[in-house]
Amino acid sequence: MHYDYLFFVAIILMSTKVLGLATKRINLPQVVGALMAGLILGPACLGLVEKTEFISSLSEIGVIVLMFSAGLETDIGELKKCGKASFIIAVIGVIVPLLGGFAVSALFNTGENTLTTSKFLQNIFIGIILTATSVSITVETLKELGKLSTRAGNAILGAALIDDILGIVALTVVTSLANPEVEIATVLLKILGFFVFAALFGVLFHILFVRWTDRTTEKLHRYNVMSFAFCLLFAYIAEAFFGVADITGAFLAGILISTSTKNKYISSRIETLSYMLLSPVFFASIGLNVTLPKMGASIVAFAGLLLVVAVLTKIIGCGLGAKICGYSTKESLQVGIGMVSRGEVALIVANKGAAVGLMSANFFGPIVIMVVITTIITPILLKIVFAEKESSELPVAKEA
Amino acid sequence: MHYDYLFFVAIILMSTKVLGLATKRINLPQVVGALMAGLILGPACLGLVEKTEFISSLSEIGVIVLMFSAGLETDIGELKKCGKASFIIAVIGVIVPLLGGFAVSALFNTGENTLTTSKFLQNIFIGIILTATSVSITVETLKELGKLSTRAGNAILGAALIDDILGIVALTVVTSLANPEVEIATVLLKILGFFVFAALFGVLFHILFVRWTDRTTEKLHRYNVMSFAFCLLFAYIAEAFFGVADITGAFLAGILISTSTKNKYISSRIETLSYMLLSPVFFASIGLNVTLPKMGASIVAFAGLLLVVAVLTKIIGCGLGAKICGYSTKESLQVGIGMVSRGEVALIVANKGAAVGLMSANFFGPIVIMVVITTIITPILLKIVFAEKESSELPVAKEA
Repeated sequence: MHYDYLFFVAIILMSTKVLGLATKRINLPQVVGALMAGLILGPACLGLVEKTEFISSLSEIGVIVLMFSAGLETDIGELKKCGKASFIIAVIGVIVPLLGGFAVSALFNTGENTLTTSKFLQNIFIGIILTATSVSITVETLKELGKLSTRAGNAILGAALIDDILGIVALTVVTSLANPEVEIATVLLKILGFFVFAALFGVLFHILFVRWTDRTTEKLHRYNVMSFAFCLLFAYIAEAFFGVADITGAFLAGILISTSTKNKYISSRIETLSYMLLSPVFFASIGLNVTLPKMGASIVAFAGLLLVVAVLTKIIGCGLGAKICGYSTKESLQVGIGMVSRGEVALIVANKGAAVGLMSANFFGPIVIMVVITTIITPILLKIVFAEKESSELPVAKEA
Repeated sequence: MHYDYLFFVAIILMSTKVLGLATKRINLPQVVGALMAGLILGPACLGLVEKTEFISSLSEIGVIVLMFSAGLETDIGELKKCGKASFIIAVIGVIVPLLGGFAVSALFNTGENTLTTSKFLQNIFIGIILTATSVSITVETLKELGKLSTRAGNAILGAALIDDILGIVALTVVTSLANPEVEIATVLLKILGFFVFAALFGVLFHILFVRWTDRTTEKLHRYNVMSFAFCLLFAYIAEAFFGVADITGAFLAGILISTSTKNKYISSRIETLSYMLLSPVFFASIGLNVTLPKMGASIVAFAGLLLVVAVLTKIIGCGLGAKICGYSTKESLQVGIGMVSRGEVALIVANKGAAVGLMSANFFGPIVIMVVITTIITPILLKIVFAEKESSELPVAKEA
């Protein structure tokens, strides 16, 4: 019906809140409940909510706002400090899952499919799917726990940013090998172009914005509206002109605004916009993607192994990277676990691969299962590894 | 392109804010600037923003939130006090434009068109288009001026609510005469059903909600999220099950929540959600509908006369109603002018009429012009008639 979207949003808001409070009561992060709400409302269970274009677009703005908000709360000095570490974490955290995914696929891919690409490329592609980290769930969980600005939190943010870039590059290399129309050089040039653009336009904006907001000590609506509009515009430009993820653009937009004197005020209003409408729709929409596939025994085994490998390779890869860079064992574990969630990124990559004949369609089921479970266990595991024995610092946990 | 909606929202937010601040600077309400932003961005001018399904749905949620917010700020006692007056204002405010529209149409409608309905019904239909009041622009303007809870403000809110119901009834009667498939009795029964439903379900919700929010003095996110979800659900039910406008449902939802002790807190967060994203999209979307039609001399004359009659009949009809009920001349003028704006309601009615053969397509141009101009002049005229010589009360004007 024409007015269905009102019902969809209403039921998403209610169920994510109710289930979020339920998971909170049993000492799990609220985001776990919100993710489960989507599973329950979607085609895998009740089938009450459809993922229409409206819900998809709104949820995309939701994840953009989440990353914008993370950018606003980021301490740039701290991020710079762990820049080198983030890079090493991201690189090892991409290589280990890539090899792991390749190995699992090599075990199960008999090559008896209708794909025209080589078996080697197909196996590499499963590896690439495993490299894609989706940091939004981790960000939300760390905010909820009041741990986003810890050393580990900053390392995760930085590494996720670099992971995104490495992921695009890896995906481009493989798809260009499968499809001669994709030019690696063009893609690399565009990524480089984005950072040049961000440096020039972003810094110019930053100067003008700080000057504008510093003219008065008043808290004016216009600062919030303009910041949000800038975030959307930056996200759009990243995605549409440079092929870089919109959330990377949004995160950078947040960092650019974070040093304004009005940062606290802007941040709190963006937070309201997020929890009142956008982020619940985003969390629910992840579950709305899930349809339970019919799978034979061999595919079930593949799914199980893929999941285990997905979890372990990120923990080991990123954890190792952190350890090498001098993080404590506990922090390294925190970083590794923070990178486990695959979220929507892996699904987008899988879709692109299937479109160019790199993946057979019956691998979709296992990948969906891997995405859903890594996404749901990440906040649970994070809560465990970020638990403190002594309450030496006061965590500013989120109200609900 | 796939990510266009990000650009659309960004450019809408920026331009509505910039033009809103510009109109504020020349002492006009900001909403005038926001409306003009839509005209400039849309097909009538630059053609930068398309009214996609996403933008339409988001703008519908925008007007819902606007009316919800008006409901939250309504003083029920005051609304009840002016209930009888509102009814009289609405009734006379429907009859006078109906006759005016009929007369204008009778002057210009030669009957030389391909419609199968009688000329009399066609002329009545133009009258019905003129009855439709769109109160959202008035609400926003009065909030901006800090005048929503004046005696005139309450009378306008009540009258608009009743006007909506009368409008549905009138539209139904005429379409049922044109199209035998529409049953008047069913429509009336459904409207009645909605008020029974609102009384039973609404009051039950009200009791549970007040009990729930009174359990603690803490300000918790959940109250805001649940209120907003309830508003959307109530709006959806009104429209989808009872054929009553979604904004009527939203306004009632606001009234039901307004007596909660958390009302101020909820209201402020709904306000943030509104100004950060939803209401700018709504204001801009009105202008996005406008395409400048090619019109001959006779149609231009019709457009001009229709506009004048649209403005005068509402001011006279509603003003007369208010005057009869003992409002001062100044207040009566305020009420009359508050009902002038036709907004999107008239366009929806016109679309429905054209679909059942009650209106010839070349009348769309004049109606669009009438809608746009009544919508833009309403806040300007309101600002004039609500201006005070002595500042006896302190208006709580909105920040921007």
